[in-house]
Amino acid sequence: MNNFNYYTPTKVYFGKGSEKNLVKLIKDGNYKKVLFHYGKGSIKKIGLYDFIINELKSNNIDFIELGGVEANPKLSLVEQGVKLAKENNIDFILAAGGGSVIDSAKSIAAGYFVDKSPWVFNSGEQVLNKSLPVGVILTLSAAGSEMSNSCVITNDYTNDKRGFGSDHNRPLFAICNPEFTYTVSKYQTACGIVDIMMHTLERTISYDTTYNPLTDNIAYGLIKAILEIGKVAYNEPTNYDARATLMWASSLSHNGLTACGRDYIMPVHQMEHALSGTYDSVAHGAGLAVLWPAWAQLAAQKDPTRFAELGYQSFGLNRKIKPLDAAITAIQLMKDYFKSIGMPLTLKELNVKYEDLEKIARLYTFDGKRTIDDIILVDYNTCLQILKNCYE
Amino acid sequence: MNNFNYYTPTKVYFGKGSEKNLVKLIKDGNYKKVLFHYGKGSIKKIGLYDFIINELKSNNIDFIELGGVEANPKLSLVEQGVKLAKENNIDFILAAGGGSVIDSAKSIAAGYFVDKSPWVFNSGEQVLNKSLPVGVILTLSAAGSEMSNSCVITNDYTNDKRGFGSDHNRPLFAICNPEFTYTVSKYQTACGIVDIMMHTLERTISYDTTYNPLTDNIAYGLIKAILEIGKVAYNEPTNYDARATLMWASSLSHNGLTACGRDYIMPVHQMEHALSGTYDSVAHGAGLAVLWPAWAQLAAQKDPTRFAELGYQSFGLNRKIKPLDAAITAIQLMKDYFKSIGMPLTLKELNVKYEDLEKIARLYTFDGKRTIDDIILVDYNTCLQILKNCYE
Repeated sequence: MNNFNYYTPTKVYFGKGSEKNLVKLIKDGNYKKVLFHYGKGSIKKIGLYDFIINELKSNNIDFIELGGVEANPKLSLVEQGVKLAKENNIDFILAAGGGSVIDSAKSIAAGYFVDKSPWVFNSGEQVLNKSLPVGVILTLSAAGSEMSNSCVITNDYTNDKRGFGSDHNRPLFAICNPEFTYTVSKYQTACGIVDIMMHTLERTISYDTTYNPLTDNIAYGLIKAILEIGKVAYNEPTNYDARATLMWASSLSHNGLTACGRDYIMPVHQMEHALSGTYDSVAHGAGLAVLWPAWAQLAAQKDPTRFAELGYQSFGLNRKIKPLDAAITAIQLMKDYFKSIGMPLTLKELNVKYEDLEKIARLYTFDGKRTIDDIILVDYNTCLQILKNCYE
Repeated sequence: MNNFNYYTPTKVYFGKGSEKNLVKLIKDGNYKKVLFHYGKGSIKKIGLYDFIINELKSNNIDFIELGGVEANPKLSLVEQGVKLAKENNIDFILAAGGGSVIDSAKSIAAGYFVDKSPWVFNSGEQVLNKSLPVGVILTLSAAGSEMSNSCVITNDYTNDKRGFGSDHNRPLFAICNPEFTYTVSKYQTACGIVDIMMHTLERTISYDTTYNPLTDNIAYGLIKAILEIGKVAYNEPTNYDARATLMWASSLSHNGLTACGRDYIMPVHQMEHALSGTYDSVAHGAGLAVLWPAWAQLAAQKDPTRFAELGYQSFGLNRKIKPLDAAITAIQLMKDYFKSIGMPLTLKELNVKYEDLEKIARLYTFDGKRTIDDIILVDYNTCLQILKNCYE
């Protein structure tokens, strides 16, 4: 087992009615003025917006609002939020929504204490040392930002999408009521399922083959649980246990637990960023569903061991099946699963043009200057090959 | 899935050399005066005592010492610690040792802000609202106190042993270097293995049969990992990966993770407290190794489902085996495992006198006035039956 640090200070309030803790949590922190941050209206549809406004007003908690966060949250709105926060002496940010809203809130929180744009943290120019506290009411099971240290922002001036990690990004609390996800569309539910699985799979199946049965069992067990309930959540949107399992898996899959003692790079997440950076219409989860099997098929040829473990532990394959066969079967079963929840299996289904594959490969490899060395080394040519392999 | 709260703010620094973070962690908190708390000399044997003293002195960190914590940490020493801490304006407690030292430190930390004995928190007379920060350097994989909210103290004036839970009990940081457990004896290693397993098993196999595949998979996966590496740690005391897995399992097994969304009572832990409360010579893990199978054999007759899951998921039993058969097999396999790591299987092996069984049953049931209703309802008679069943 490799050395690791583990730090997940977020207070999680999970379950039906957990939003009733909101006022207490804000009052416990003695916060004076709240910035209530949200997206494009889904919280209004489910009554959460009215609930929050009513709770804040009737408990005399001073607040201002900033809505309008889009998928792939934009720096321009973040900068607007920082300005608002500074002008109003905000000391607490409440994010109600999914990963985009939470990341936008984290970025505003980070920008509060600096004179520059908070993009300096995403670009790596500056290290984050202090941030406003962020509280979350979660409405989408996917990104895991509600407990994670990461913050991904799209710089809409330069069209650059970048994430950075810092323990200062970890929310103070996360209110997780699975009922708030009942109205999430089938497609978005499926995208979330893939994203959650990939957060664990890309940590677990990496170049690092250190013996680590505890973290492995947790990771493969998490994948197994999602395989079991993901389809239920997809087919029965108001199945509480399925929605709840998905929501808790979202947090555990990205808070660090499934990587304790294991090093990883997340090569496919990075490739997907190049894909959805080129095609704004591509949902992150859908992009991952296409790219991961294509990457895995190449990687399993080099070292099938950990893909085989996925087969044995998560898909229940017989251990008598040889590693390479088990690996290939597991990857195929994963594709079948993605298909069963309406995910695309090819770039063509995502309306990607064949002539753009080179552009994506260039973006991934910084114009051919970068290689990513995980189980397989991916340079420009290998990346292009992977993209072609899953084109149609 | 039931509602739950999850809060694990402890910063974990895990692995070889992780003790090098000590000074930075104390300086980050800007603490002025440290109470260095430890046990009866094992930290001197492994060089940790000298390391800590040298780190504190050479970095000009002001500190006082209080050693001498025994297994089943005593209130009288805690009270001495509170007095010392108050007289010296201590603002941080460093606990170097296992669960006893950590719990003793937690109790001193709790007592610092009250005028009474900190026993008021264990007795339930008062709720803990504030505590000094406690940092841990762990030297024993067992109790999981390094991340847990619990604090068990023995009142040596009244011979009463009681624990209480509070988030204020959760340590600020835990430095976990598995190498510090290399010298732990085979017997203590085995006791730790049982304790760790039981922290998860008593959460997982409870009266609450709510559908909860994610938490279940994590729990059974944790047990499976311990079954695999426990024997290795027992037979090869300096096997790093085995010691590391055991250490991390100790923390995860008692920090709340394996009970998210599942309610539990821990009936066997409570029975063991009555046993070791009557026989101070009985090690907690050894007592659990005797009592759990005896309780489980009765409970499985009433509802074998979750014992069977233990068989399928942790012991790899074929799912074609019917639940009751799988349950009985799983319990027997667990007994076999305990035996293989030198644990007792009977009360007689623990030198318990047959005529004391009634006394233990009376202690467990508060003189027959209390019943514990888990999978089976345990009253005085059932408790006595369980004790007799595992007597010899």
